[in-house]
Amino acid sequence: MVEWSVATDSLSSTFGALADPTRRAMLARLAKGEATVTELAEPFAMSLPAVSKHLKVLERAGLITRGREAQWRPCRLEARPLGGATEWLERYRQFWEGSFDRLEDHLREIQREQQS
Amino acid sequence: MVEWSVATDSLSSTFGALADPTRRAMLARLAKGEATVTELAEPFAMSLPAVSKHLKVLERAGLITRGREAQWRPCRLEARPLGGATEWLERYRQFWEGSFDRLEDHLREIQREQQS
Repeated sequence: MVEWSVATDSLSSTFGALADPTRRAMLARLAKGEATVTELAEPFAMSLPAVSKHLKVLERAGLITRGREAQWRPCRLEARPLGGATEWLERYRQFWEGSFDRLEDHLREIQREQQS
Repeated sequence: MVEWSVATDSLSSTFGALADPTRRAMLARLAKGEATVTELAEPFAMSLPAVSKHLKVLERAGLITRGREAQWRPCRLEARPLGGATEWLERYRQFWEGSFDRLEDHLREIQREQQS
């Protein structure tokens, strides 16, 4: 585990919220539909307070909202911040596509060497 | 500033590294070409050790590499992890596009109301 100190602008909140496999799994579950905290906690060997802490990070980042029914308060995915994050990443598409091309070239060269 | 405790799987490292405006600005600078630590530090009112700390986070996430020349060690963007992050986010595209659609519908409705 690493501790990161993170500023609270909107993109930083989004990326910070995504920087944890449990929180990403929670978003994946919510992509299938609303869920209660208990339902969200089920797949994880984790205390309810730990689950609540993750949900709070997601909520602060605007990635989920909670229903108003006092007892159930189902969680719901709010995907718009993910759009902002993708938009930021898209600017770099040419770079990683470039690096895949370079990898492919490299692999082809190795194959050629092995065949000759 | 918020402290996040983040697991060290590859996607988490990528998103964690992106969860800071200084680190994102450094990547944006490196997208234009290699740069030394001093060049990277220039736009920020930040000590060199603080800049080095950010660079280490980027390096651990595999987002930059450093040259071998002892004195200069220019930093270079390695964009492939950004591809992995985008791939993860792409799965949610339908959700945020859906929410933009809903926003557009809502705005159109307001306009109609104002015109009638």
